[in-house]
Amino acid sequence: MSDAQALFATHQATLQQALEAIQTRDYWTPYSEMPSKRIYGENAEAEGKAAFESYLNARFELAGVPEVADVGEEASPYGIELNIRYPQPDPQALIARMQAALPAWRDAGVDARAGVCMEILQRLNQRSFEIAHAVMHTTGQAFMMAFQAGGPHAQDRGLEAVAYAYAEMKKVPENATWTKPQGKNPPLVMHKRFHIVPRGISLVIACSTFPTWNTYPGLFASLVTGNPVIVKPHPGAVLPVAISVKIAQQVLEEAGFDPALVSMAADSSQAPITKTLALDPAVKLIDFTGSTAFGDWLEENARQAQVFTEKAGVNSIVIDSVQDMKAVARNLAFTLSLYSGQMCTTTQAIYVPRTGIKTAEGSLSFDEVAQALATATSKFLADNDRACAVLGAVQSCATAERIEQCTALGEVVLASESRQHPEFANARVRTPLILKVDAQDKATYSEERFGPIAFIIATDSTEHSLNLAREVINEKGAITLGVYSTDAQVLEAAEALAIDVKVALSCNLDGGVFVNQSAAFSDFHATGGNPAANASLTDTAFVARRFVIVQSRRHA
Amino acid sequence: MSDAQALFATHQATLQQALEAIQTRDYWTPYSEMPSKRIYGENAEAEGKAAFESYLNARFELAGVPEVADVGEEASPYGIELNIRYPQPDPQALIARMQAALPAWRDAGVDARAGVCMEILQRLNQRSFEIAHAVMHTTGQAFMMAFQAGGPHAQDRGLEAVAYAYAEMKKVPENATWTKPQGKNPPLVMHKRFHIVPRGISLVIACSTFPTWNTYPGLFASLVTGNPVIVKPHPGAVLPVAISVKIAQQVLEEAGFDPALVSMAADSSQAPITKTLALDPAVKLIDFTGSTAFGDWLEENARQAQVFTEKAGVNSIVIDSVQDMKAVARNLAFTLSLYSGQMCTTTQAIYVPRTGIKTAEGSLSFDEVAQALATATSKFLADNDRACAVLGAVQSCATAERIEQCTALGEVVLASESRQHPEFANARVRTPLILKVDAQDKATYSEERFGPIAFIIATDSTEHSLNLAREVINEKGAITLGVYSTDAQVLEAAEALAIDVKVALSCNLDGGVFVNQSAAFSDFHATGGNPAANASLTDTAFVARRFVIVQSRRHA
Repeated sequence: MSDAQALFATHQATLQQALEAIQTRDYWTPYSEMPSKRIYGENAEAEGKAAFESYLNARFELAGVPEVADVGEEASPYGIELNIRYPQPDPQALIARMQAALPAWRDAGVDARAGVCMEILQRLNQRSFEIAHAVMHTTGQAFMMAFQAGGPHAQDRGLEAVAYAYAEMKKVPENATWTKPQGKNPPLVMHKRFHIVPRGISLVIACSTFPTWNTYPGLFASLVTGNPVIVKPHPGAVLPVAISVKIAQQVLEEAGFDPALVSMAADSSQAPITKTLALDPAVKLIDFTGSTAFGDWLEENARQAQVFTEKAGVNSIVIDSVQDMKAVARNLAFTLSLYSGQMCTTTQAIYVPRTGIKTAEGSLSFDEVAQALATATSKFLADNDRACAVLGAVQSCATAERIEQCTALGEVVLASESRQHPEFANARVRTPLILKVDAQDKATYSEERFGPIAFIIATDSTEHSLNLAREVINEKGAITLGVYSTDAQVLEAAEALAIDVKVALSCNLDGGVFVNQSAAFSDFHATGGNPAANASLTDTAFVARRFVIVQSRRHA
Repeated sequence: MSDAQALFATHQATLQQALEAIQTRDYWTPYSEMPSKRIYGENAEAEGKAAFESYLNARFELAGVPEVADVGEEASPYGIELNIRYPQPDPQALIARMQAALPAWRDAGVDARAGVCMEILQRLNQRSFEIAHAVMHTTGQAFMMAFQAGGPHAQDRGLEAVAYAYAEMKKVPENATWTKPQGKNPPLVMHKRFHIVPRGISLVIACSTFPTWNTYPGLFASLVTGNPVIVKPHPGAVLPVAISVKIAQQVLEEAGFDPALVSMAADSSQAPITKTLALDPAVKLIDFTGSTAFGDWLEENARQAQVFTEKAGVNSIVIDSVQDMKAVARNLAFTLSLYSGQMCTTTQAIYVPRTGIKTAEGSLSFDEVAQALATATSKFLADNDRACAVLGAVQSCATAERIEQCTALGEVVLASESRQHPEFANARVRTPLILKVDAQDKATYSEERFGPIAFIIATDSTEHSLNLAREVINEKGAITLGVYSTDAQVLEAAEALAIDVKVALSCNLDGGVFVNQSAAFSDFHATGGNPAANASLTDTAFVARRFVIVQSRRHA
């Protein structure tokens, strides 16, 4: 048994569970989201922190990649000094090496590749504390979120992609015998072989806010289907990618493959290399998370590649009627506050009839609904320690500036505040800005305002709210839609709307589940059917285009 | 039970067999390829011919499609008068009607749609004689081929697409309960619904040579996944599409759906409407078979749609060594002759070492190999009746003229002849042109020369042959590659080549299986991985992009 096949044997039971989970879509994960000593080990926390600190003020080394420059411009949103340098590889030399490494990886077969991918995921899991610190100090996520979303939840999404791809590849038999009767004559008998053939080099373009969660699906979907993967990190969030790539390289090398099968191509914001890589004829797969402008550019120009994009959108909530406005407001306060609204799933547009809404305790005017949201958010963020542990820090100066710029776009219901982080004196912490606008100010609320900026939109009626949501999502896209109603007909109308504009719907969330959170193996992240994304994490379409089937046949 | 669900019940067992067949990839079909009375009924042949004749010199009526013109310019390659007129619908009105019909078709659900599709296929099967005559007199295929490739084999490919799409849609549960433990607190419990949502209007652009075989996969893959389908026939081969669409409309209407869910948009070669349809924002799926120029145009311009193309290529054979040259030559003579080389799978480039090849009976020089092919083809076509029954007629004047134009491209090994068809005095019948060229004349043999035109290419060695095949297929694409060798190492080198350039390989075909024929449920037609096609008939990637998954969730 090869090393890779031994890895498959080790992880086969977990893979089998993953395969079952994507079918039943019940809660399941092999990677605990609790950063507990019991699960991760007595010293995991301290070791993770120490490992993170060992990268600071140093050069990050990766396996045998020819380099042309030394780059590094990460700035912690928490204000600590990072000063990490990374090798920038020569793109042509890197691609040539990866192409040379492709046949051995391809020919290792599905099980061997799955075994290696599962081992990488397990090692990533073991290193969750270290990765959490790296995610925290590049994205600005608070530690708990950096641990969960950057660690186990990202690993879940990676495993989900492995499971989907594995199932698809295994549907194709390696061999078949084809026997066609010929009446009284002997039958025609052909022996056939079917090969899973990767498309070529895969380029995964990571973003600055979720450098692991949004990267692992494309990385693992491409890798397990046989494609070497270049991860191009955002210059502002390199370390979590670098650690992940290094772990992948170690596992690949131990299993007897070229570690460069997973490589990182760091660059600088002054001299970006993404377009060069994206247009290289050898690059046949591209995964991208980021701006609509660049996503559209990739779709238009990288014609030699299958391009999977997640872009901007206007996530929306329609409030029609509620049982308990306080519970609803608490739920939405958390949604708006979490990671200061820097999730691709955070609500931006909240539609409320200007005539107000019904609740179990009587009617509330539009202004009362707006005030309830503002009050709940203020209360939720009243304790500064807790606030900072949820808000985290704002990743970029541009986002912090955007909050300022947007203040004049409507009537301020809740002003954004700067907060002093209890641990990091220079952390860039901001609370959400909530504005009231009228339905007719469509240009204002229908443009993505990335960051902690939300609009409460006064509409003529719930029907009007649903129609506006339909228009905006059709034009600008969305990953999440929420609806609050005690009326079954309104919920069905929202369901019909979600189907029409191809967006995931959450109904009446007023407890411990939030519209901006999705669970791997159960929730599909984006549908691929509206302008916010052309692919879904993860469905069959996300994996099936990463390989082709080549057959041969001969007489038996 | 709705009518559609009753249809599902009727056809469920056959669908189940199809689902098993695409996994085992053994020979299987529910549609007999033998045009026998025992299977199709005592009167099927006569009724089919009479039905075909009833269309001549008449107007073909389709269900409720608003029309803007009356078109019709088909000319039988057999020279008989057709004079059939078709309604040309107003594209905007057609699309509006289809969009209005979409929700009911979508909401009917997977089983209901599968039932309707299976019933359409069964009715198409029952009408195979009628369709055979329509295919014969538009494409020029000889009757037996028109029956098989235009009838049961096309139906097989339609059913294969239904089975693939059905399996993918059924992988997604309609409902799920998600229960996440919360330590000592009660678990979070969410009820989730998952909807299969079609992308929108599907446009299937048919070709003039295989108006059913190349149309049914896209048509049925789109229809069963919930997308209304417009078939845009080639102006030269409308009738087989019109009959197919009419049958689909009848089944849809009987099952309670708008018959316009499958519609035909005929046009004329003077005023084509394909580009207008392809760029319509409502058109989200496009299937195309035809020229590389137009396929590339669609891929470049129809950016709102998922585009599946089958384009030109240079199908190749490498001859290294053989057991029995006569058997090989007989096999290739049939391949080159069948439908006068007008198949997208017909061999064009035959690479042979200039130093000759080894056989079980001693060596043969390059010229002896070329002569063996010429002689076998001449002998095979010596009986004029048999020749015409295999050659059929040349679909277009352009193809007939191309044979003339290509005569000077090399040294003629076998000249193309015009033949007198025993039944149709004005049939355009041509035998294959076989030319000898040198490996260095790459521009000559590496351009697709559609029709009965083949090149025997003198190379330095088998290694040189394989390298040239690699270069040409990488640049121009291919759907088929054949290799003849008695050397296991050469066969493995050919297998490696096939994997690298992503083309289906046939080894040592010297009996009753031909490189240009593929069997549904077992052989993949095109890989989607080289320039000849960006999709495969049929793999998961061909169906999975035709729908998205929209979910909703709420507290249980």
